[in-house]
Amino acid sequence: MKVIHTADWHLGKILNGKSLLEDQSYILESFIKAMVDEQPDVIVIAGDLYDTSYPNKEAIQLLESTINTLNLEMNMPLIMINGNHDSKERLNYGSKWFEKSQLYIRTSLEDMASPVSIGNIDFYTLPFSTVNETSYFFGDKMIETHQQALSKSIEYMTQHLDRDKTNMLVGHLTVQGGIRTESERPLTIGTVESVEESSFQRFDQVLLGHLHHPFSINSNFVHYSGSLLQYSFSESTQPKGYRVIEIIDNEIKSKFRPLTPLRQLEVVEGNYDDAIQEKLEIKDKYNYLHFKLKHMSHVSDPMMHLKQIYPNTLALTNKTFEFNTPIHHENIEIQKLDDETIINKFYENITNETLTSVQNKKIGKVLNELLEGGQTH
Amino acid sequence: MKVIHTADWHLGKILNGKSLLEDQSYILESFIKAMVDEQPDVIVIAGDLYDTSYPNKEAIQLLESTINTLNLEMNMPLIMINGNHDSKERLNYGSKWFEKSQLYIRTSLEDMASPVSIGNIDFYTLPFSTVNETSYFFGDKMIETHQQALSKSIEYMTQHLDRDKTNMLVGHLTVQGGIRTESERPLTIGTVESVEESSFQRFDQVLLGHLHHPFSINSNFVHYSGSLLQYSFSESTQPKGYRVIEIIDNEIKSKFRPLTPLRQLEVVEGNYDDAIQEKLEIKDKYNYLHFKLKHMSHVSDPMMHLKQIYPNTLALTNKTFEFNTPIHHENIEIQKLDDETIINKFYENITNETLTSVQNKKIGKVLNELLEGGQTH
Repeated sequence: MKVIHTADWHLGKILNGKSLLEDQSYILESFIKAMVDEQPDVIVIAGDLYDTSYPNKEAIQLLESTINTLNLEMNMPLIMINGNHDSKERLNYGSKWFEKSQLYIRTSLEDMASPVSIGNIDFYTLPFSTVNETSYFFGDKMIETHQQALSKSIEYMTQHLDRDKTNMLVGHLTVQGGIRTESERPLTIGTVESVEESSFQRFDQVLLGHLHHPFSINSNFVHYSGSLLQYSFSESTQPKGYRVIEIIDNEIKSKFRPLTPLRQLEVVEGNYDDAIQEKLEIKDKYNYLHFKLKHMSHVSDPMMHLKQIYPNTLALTNKTFEFNTPIHHENIEIQKLDDETIINKFYENITNETLTSVQNKKIGKVLNELLEGGQTH
Repeated sequence: MKVIHTADWHLGKILNGKSLLEDQSYILESFIKAMVDEQPDVIVIAGDLYDTSYPNKEAIQLLESTINTLNLEMNMPLIMINGNHDSKERLNYGSKWFEKSQLYIRTSLEDMASPVSIGNIDFYTLPFSTVNETSYFFGDKMIETHQQALSKSIEYMTQHLDRDKTNMLVGHLTVQGGIRTESERPLTIGTVESVEESSFQRFDQVLLGHLHHPFSINSNFVHYSGSLLQYSFSESTQPKGYRVIEIIDNEIKSKFRPLTPLRQLEVVEGNYDDAIQEKLEIKDKYNYLHFKLKHMSHVSDPMMHLKQIYPNTLALTNKTFEFNTPIHHENIEIQKLDDETIINKFYENITNETLTSVQNKKIGKVLNELLEGGQTH
């Protein structure tokens, strides 16, 4: 048996104003070609198919044509769940017809205890849900954390687990200690969003989405496939591809297989003049570039000049300022902070007071409502 | 053979600020019950499934659950095309999987010459398209009117017509002389949008959508099913339902079958005081009402008072003003004018000059772009 594990396609993603659709279309063509060679028994997509709950027409068409090729033309069974970026209703549309062709789109907690059986494997699907949704589903107000929600869900879905089968879990969540990047939108605000690896011990293999690094955690049975492409400059050193899970003689092995993108993300540091004179070491001048440059205060529109040579320049940071003036230092660091801390720091800066715990709770609540916006409105 | 003909569901329609979803859900349940009795060989829906190209979640779910019941649970073949209100891409999503269950969603001109065969009937599908789209499809710049577009399309689709079969056309357009109502959005601005009945003579039966009256035209082989519900007060005297087309001994008969809605639209005229004292003749006080009342200048918020007695009051016209002051007369008449005339009258009112033919052409162009907005953006 061979299972392909992929996740975090984020179709429709726009990075620094640039639509990545061409890159996504290119990498999905490579993925389809790889599947011709792999000839898997099933493909699992562990959430975040789209980047937003209102994806544009082109993103929808790219998903439809890709799964059409894999499922209808190449006759491969597909299992997918929603991630925190997907709208459950949108992803789920038509799923009753799709199941007849072994295209399983699972977005409902109700399906948790009904695994999809392919060969000797039972695939249990845990679509992304907020803590509130899980609490409501079980009618259990004691569920207040992601860990509690997961424990309850696993308990519920494994009550009729068939020990004669290989049992795999497909989920979209954060495991404790996983390597985070800047392009994963937080699952929740004001509460720990990660869960313990040990929660999954009833399963033989866990196929996850959400974290973008394919080696996010060090485990022999819990794996992230990583995202389809580099989706933030903090991922510029990460390989991207898919995982192959093979069961040979009752042993399960998960291996990562890289795919080559149309363009990579690349961070370039140095002096502005060296950049303009093409003296800096750059892997590919057509890559998506983030320049961090010194000595450019004499130039009026450095971005324009850089784009004339490096057409896919997406970001420019003034490194001279970064070390000299604290205000710009703050500006750069802000990208690494979570929303709650940014609001706290802003309040402090303006009022010279800190937010009370009541105010902080209110802010957490509003941020969570915004996060859930895609699902509930 | 029995064919059911319906059209113009307009799911998600909002009338005077009131969502008609509950009414639509109710009438579709009645429709499903009627289909249990009818046991048709196929159901045809001739466009305008949705009211807008961006229908809300609830409207999408109502369509999905309705066609799920008819197609997957009751095993009835379904053929649908897009109307001028539908987004082709949205309606078409998943159609390759749907066809495996005999759910045919046709939104592309390319499918024109490939009829859907059910029993001995070939159904030719002509999805709504703008004149520009048809002109582009045929690469023929001489196509400038709906009549030219239709003639070319029929010529193209009937070149391999099988005379041994019964040939039916499914379309969404305006036939000359058809009874118009206020809820049909114009197909085009500045050019005649209607086509001649004689264009269809190569077909045995033509099943149309767009006009909302089930007896819009007087023909023995071209029929409108009419809309699912009354969608404007100008339709308040029209019956609504579906059509049954039966072929018995080579004879084709189309009959209209009414369905009873949850609420009807009703126009009520009289004195304000009689309305408040419930002395006016009203079919059902829970109907969607449009009051046209006299003698209410002494009341500060007549709408509020009316709603306390007639909770589904949607419109109120002051009949006293209508006959006394020309400005209010204009206000009322505006509802019966097309967009171009409204703009013309406004310009005249403000400037005391009339628009030039160049200006009128520009306005027509802008209005057409807005009309096509759902399809192209």
